[in-house]
Amino acid sequence: MFQLDSRLAGDTLEVASLTLCQVLLFNDRRYPWLILVPRQRGVTEILDLSVADQAQLWREVTLVAQVLRQAQPGLKLNIGALGNVVSQLHVHLVLRHAADPAWPGPVWGHSPREPYGDEEGRTALKLWQTLLEQEAKS
Amino acid sequence: MFQLDSRLAGDTLEVASLTLCQVLLFNDRRYPWLILVPRQRGVTEILDLSVADQAQLWREVTLVAQVLRQAQPGLKLNIGALGNVVSQLHVHLVLRHAADPAWPGPVWGHSPREPYGDEEGRTALKLWQTLLEQEAKS
Repeated sequence: MFQLDSRLAGDTLEVASLTLCQVLLFNDRRYPWLILVPRQRGVTEILDLSVADQAQLWREVTLVAQVLRQAQPGLKLNIGALGNVVSQLHVHLVLRHAADPAWPGPVWGHSPREPYGDEEGRTALKLWQTLLEQEAKS
Repeated sequence: MFQLDSRLAGDTLEVASLTLCQVLLFNDRRYPWLILVPRQRGVTEILDLSVADQAQLWREVTLVAQVLRQAQPGLKLNIGALGNVVSQLHVHLVLRHAADPAWPGPVWGHSPREPYGDEEGRTALKLWQTLLEQEAKS
């Protein structure tokens, strides 16, 4: 049975479930940052997924990319699947701009995250859930 | 007309042309590191590609991922599309292991590259060209 890696679970807030992936909000108020995790056990590489599931993963990456662009048009999207620290397959999608703390370097490993406040986190979650629902329907 | 970004051109060796993308070898002997660049003008985000070209890009990402895995099985694949420095859309695929200089952090922005020697570079190019041809046929 699929179980979300404990480090991923601790660093994120749960947004929604798509056909293949769980969508997580990285709990760092400095960046609009969503993470897709295929709900499959023991998968560490994209090539470990079936061909059909790989195609589904790309569809869901595209969906989340559209949601991010819609929320904050004009920012640079960074997509990354690394897994050097947390081996469970997960794909980062994060919006970047020239004034963010890690620019122009990668966000991964840059600096400790700054968690959302309780109310702020609930508001952010609601925003991403609403945009994701709208985009999934369109 | 498509023209490869001059910084990408200067940092890489040309491996092959696929249906959509140019395949480049990042000229850093420390990592097995290939880059895909869609041969389209003015494209900076994956969402800027047509839906058909997005699907083709993912197919080519998968193809190159298979080639890398075949060359050095068991290493961790990192995939990244950033574009914070070079805006022309390009996708990095790089194999990682626990003894590489940037592990477990990202390779991007970590340290200056160490170019291949002439002979070494030709040998590496030949290897990737051969593996890519084999994989494309299979």
